[in-house]
Amino acid sequence: MKIEKITNMKWLNIFNVSYKNKKGQDSNWTFASRKQNPVLGEELKPDAVVIVPIHKTPEGDKLVLIKEFRIPLGDYEYGFPAGLIENENNVDSAKRELFEETGLNLTKIIHVSPPCVSSAGLSDESVVYVICECEGTINKDNLEENEDITANSMNLKDLKNLYKSGSKLSAKCVPFLMTFIMNGKIEFNMIPWAKI
Amino acid sequence: MKIEKITNMKWLNIFNVSYKNKKGQDSNWTFASRKQNPVLGEELKPDAVVIVPIHKTPEGDKLVLIKEFRIPLGDYEYGFPAGLIENENNVDSAKRELFEETGLNLTKIIHVSPPCVSSAGLSDESVVYVICECEGTINKDNLEENEDITANSMNLKDLKNLYKSGSKLSAKCVPFLMTFIMNGKIEFNMIPWAKI
Repeated sequence: MKIEKITNMKWLNIFNVSYKNKKGQDSNWTFASRKQNPVLGEELKPDAVVIVPIHKTPEGDKLVLIKEFRIPLGDYEYGFPAGLIENENNVDSAKRELFEETGLNLTKIIHVSPPCVSSAGLSDESVVYVICECEGTINKDNLEENEDITANSMNLKDLKNLYKSGSKLSAKCVPFLMTFIMNGKIEFNMIPWAKI
Repeated sequence: MKIEKITNMKWLNIFNVSYKNKKGQDSNWTFASRKQNPVLGEELKPDAVVIVPIHKTPEGDKLVLIKEFRIPLGDYEYGFPAGLIENENNVDSAKRELFEETGLNLTKIIHVSPPCVSSAGLSDESVVYVICECEGTINKDNLEENEDITANSMNLKDLKNLYKSGSKLSAKCVPFLMTFIMNGKIEFNMIPWAKI
């Protein structure tokens, strides 16, 4: 396989790969990468962390979602707090991003997923899901200048209404919304993880 | 917001958006799109369908995952059968892709999600999740020439082993794997959907 860099942008570039398909025919595949020089076949090094925050409140456990203006959509999207991993481990990144985007404090890690690929036909971007508990009061004190984000602590009824609302939703968030709605409760059963 | 097309590729292009952030400062955002001329702010028209197939077998319900060689990874990835939606509705697309990639027949639609965005910081790509039941025997008779795919019908133990294996996994698949592993069973409770 031969990889060619098509663009020379700072944050995201397009690459074209020439390869022979399983029948030996010459083929091409175009993909986008946040890496300046991606190496095909290397181990996944997660680009970003996606935080699944269970908010411990006097009214019970809620799920924290953010409403963020997304330039590529030209619109707001509801999803989980998330961000690119800087020089830090996945858990520290989750603590930092959760605090920056919601003002909440991560108090307990429930599970950290293996790195997984956002959309492998489109890009080599990979993320880790960090399922955690958090406490505190939502605020906007720590948002970055370019971030237009409103965090919401949502109970099951809120999640159902959001799911039906027609608002733009994140594909990383929707499976968890389905799960909580189907199970009729916002809960992660932690016991099985020990058995995995 | 002003959008500029940076590349002129057939399947995927890079766009740069000039905009003023919430403090009125000039900013830029780069994203990738499968659309030749994306319109910021328009309704989501799903690019692809992601099928969550429950395989009805004599040994009980299993989950069908595919192992597919992904050029942008230069490696195999485990995920759900999926594909770009052609001139067809979401359910017909799911039936077609499931049959092409696994040889299985979609027998019952459990739920179709709203369109949701794969990775909104990176791209405007959106997908729908189609949760369904399927029957039949897995085969490779209907794969396209460029597809290097092996379908697997997996029970809970298989899913746990895969989750721990270090294999590259799809971010659209992992939340469902977590759910089934946490719940200790491969099952979607269909009743709540009627209540949504």
